[in-house]
Amino acid sequence: MVSDLLHSFREVWAQLSGIGRAPDGGYLRFAWSPAEIELRDWFHAQAAARDMPVTSDGNGNLFATWGDGEPGGVLTGSHFDSVPHGGAYDGPLGIVSAFLAVDVLRSRGFQPVRAITVAAFAEEEGSRFGVACLGSRLLTGAIDPERAAALTDRDGLSLGDVLGVVPHGARPSFVARFDAYVELHVEQGRALGSPVGVASAIWPHGRWRFDVEGEGNHAGTTLMSDRRDPMLTYAFTVLAANKEARLRGGHATVGRVEVVPNATNAIPSGVRGWLDARAADDETLAAMVEALAKKATERAGRDGTAIRFTAESTTGEVRFDEGLAARLATLLGDVPVLPTGAGHDAGVLSAHLPTAMLFVRNPTGVSHAPAESATDDDCAAGVLALARVLEELSGRPLVDHDEGVARA
Amino acid sequence: MVSDLLHSFREVWAQLSGIGRAPDGGYLRFAWSPAEIELRDWFHAQAAARDMPVTSDGNGNLFATWGDGEPGGVLTGSHFDSVPHGGAYDGPLGIVSAFLAVDVLRSRGFQPVRAITVAAFAEEEGSRFGVACLGSRLLTGAIDPERAAALTDRDGLSLGDVLGVVPHGARPSFVARFDAYVELHVEQGRALGSPVGVASAIWPHGRWRFDVEGEGNHAGTTLMSDRRDPMLTYAFTVLAANKEARLRGGHATVGRVEVVPNATNAIPSGVRGWLDARAADDETLAAMVEALAKKATERAGRDGTAIRFTAESTTGEVRFDEGLAARLATLLGDVPVLPTGAGHDAGVLSAHLPTAMLFVRNPTGVSHAPAESATDDDCAAGVLALARVLEELSGRPLVDHDEGVARA
Repeated sequence: MVSDLLHSFREVWAQLSGIGRAPDGGYLRFAWSPAEIELRDWFHAQAAARDMPVTSDGNGNLFATWGDGEPGGVLTGSHFDSVPHGGAYDGPLGIVSAFLAVDVLRSRGFQPVRAITVAAFAEEEGSRFGVACLGSRLLTGAIDPERAAALTDRDGLSLGDVLGVVPHGARPSFVARFDAYVELHVEQGRALGSPVGVASAIWPHGRWRFDVEGEGNHAGTTLMSDRRDPMLTYAFTVLAANKEARLRGGHATVGRVEVVPNATNAIPSGVRGWLDARAADDETLAAMVEALAKKATERAGRDGTAIRFTAESTTGEVRFDEGLAARLATLLGDVPVLPTGAGHDAGVLSAHLPTAMLFVRNPTGVSHAPAESATDDDCAAGVLALARVLEELSGRPLVDHDEGVARA
Repeated sequence: MVSDLLHSFREVWAQLSGIGRAPDGGYLRFAWSPAEIELRDWFHAQAAARDMPVTSDGNGNLFATWGDGEPGGVLTGSHFDSVPHGGAYDGPLGIVSAFLAVDVLRSRGFQPVRAITVAAFAEEEGSRFGVACLGSRLLTGAIDPERAAALTDRDGLSLGDVLGVVPHGARPSFVARFDAYVELHVEQGRALGSPVGVASAIWPHGRWRFDVEGEGNHAGTTLMSDRRDPMLTYAFTVLAANKEARLRGGHATVGRVEVVPNATNAIPSGVRGWLDARAADDETLAAMVEALAKKATERAGRDGTAIRFTAESTTGEVRFDEGLAARLATLLGDVPVLPTGAGHDAGVLSAHLPTAMLFVRNPTGVSHAPAESATDDDCAAGVLALARVLEELSGRPLVDHDEGVARA
């Protein structure tokens, strides 16, 4: 049984391994890119092979349903898109595991009382349009569809251009059909010692763009004292972000930069960086970014430049449903319950319905990079754990709907 | 007469102003790009209109000759290519002024004893293939043609691919025909208070690429203490370069950076920067770069990264022919004689023949940026100065060729 599952996992995993793969082994699976569309086609094929009808919500998210013919009951899944040169597991593992969990349940002759729906959410990483969890934010009304349609990618193409329409936006009655969302995901640090764990919380986090304006000039002829070099302010901000995060036990990263004109023999006229910052609670995160902005602004004054911070997306602390987390941890044999610094669609959905996450162990802790990995054995254990959870949540009602209606 | 020249200058200058112009007013005129090829076509048309036959040296450089039908005598000119979003004057002013100086001499009925040749050198900025003064280096044998052919641009295209052949390389007998090279150029700092000046020297300078290797990872989940973040080492190096230059009265700039994968929520796996460094003499420059590399390497040790410096191009101090500079300064009415921090084809050619440069005043000192400028009046004064110099150098022999042959 377990060896059959290992075989199935490897077979399905191999179908995806070549899609959007760069020579360095990392993945370029940006939302609505040819690679990500190939993965969507794969989703349709997997659903069809299992007689699971597929619906879309007009926001780029896909849903394949087992039971009832209607979406509802338990929602599970994840996302296909990657960061540039990201790993294979972040996202796709949750979708693959969901389909394989359906197979496990069927092989046991299980029939869900309430439907099981497998979801593929769009643009979770925000690597193309800059807003993480864009698909789940649209579905739950956490972002205005017109604002989303106007977001542009690095080539200047807007989401509206890519979709050909403005996204539909919030679908509250669709979301209300589900009694729980459970997302399986590879763990992204080294915090999980067992094959499978359950999430307790997501740290608050955000992305801030910082634009440094200086004066473009000749690198050879401009006196050091005459310069207004934005690269200096940028470099100071990178080091200061690191320091402020360490002081507060938080995380701060500057992983993306754009320079104008980006020429060896020209002092730049402008440098734009992106800060990713996270901390254990909202107050700590706010204090960290505020302290950084203050120091960077002082430095800009000394450099003769100007710096401006703009929040591109911020997400408050998410505490997953404590009762559900405890119940699932017990169900799976007292597996660890742990927080994460990584954002997920589960964090967005948790504001609207009971939500849980299962983590699969990451032996090196590497993520968002080609070396991201999980063993096949741990992945198979993840599928079995997800199947157990879906069986539990779809076999009997979580919420008494009639009672809810009677109370309304 | 001067108002006629002003009119001619404005008319010719307007022909070029739209070619390769970006919306910010800066120019994208990379070597062998459509814009730079349009400027080459303009060169052919200007030469044809003046009955000046055009030859090429198989290295991408163009030569239009007045007199003798053979290249020889006095060489003048500059380059068309720009840095990304560079100014209008750096390069093209020297070519435009050369053609207009020919017109001035002809309008006076002047007949050159020895030929006057107008040159357009290829890839002076090194903005496409990374090696500055590539055309003049090839012509004089300062770079191996096979090595040059293998240089690649940002799209991975090699110079050999672009030209369709390996460049010809050194042409010593062609270079030996000239008795002097005089390049007119906009001044690139604020050091020149008069409309026109003469160059004494070019500071030694070079470009070093520095590659910082770290470990790509997730920005949200990786503990600060577990990181090997190459962006930190990069940022330290930027600030340290500035400090080392200030300590020594030199210039250091990091104006170009590339990040892998360059994503907001990923700690980079690698950051590559380019250092442009210059100083008043070779020893100071070497000490500056050595001190920087030492400090950056120490910092990399603390960051858990590795940094490697690679010299991409270096040029020792150039002292222009002192006798020629003094003679031209006197000829032009005791104009200032001043050094520059900027590299030029004149610096490369000065190793092979008596070479001089004329500078035209730059009111703001801005260069390599859209705000680079010179007044029309100063440009006209530059044309008249260049005409005076060409008249002087082509009207009677600089070198007694017969005596030279007799001595050999």
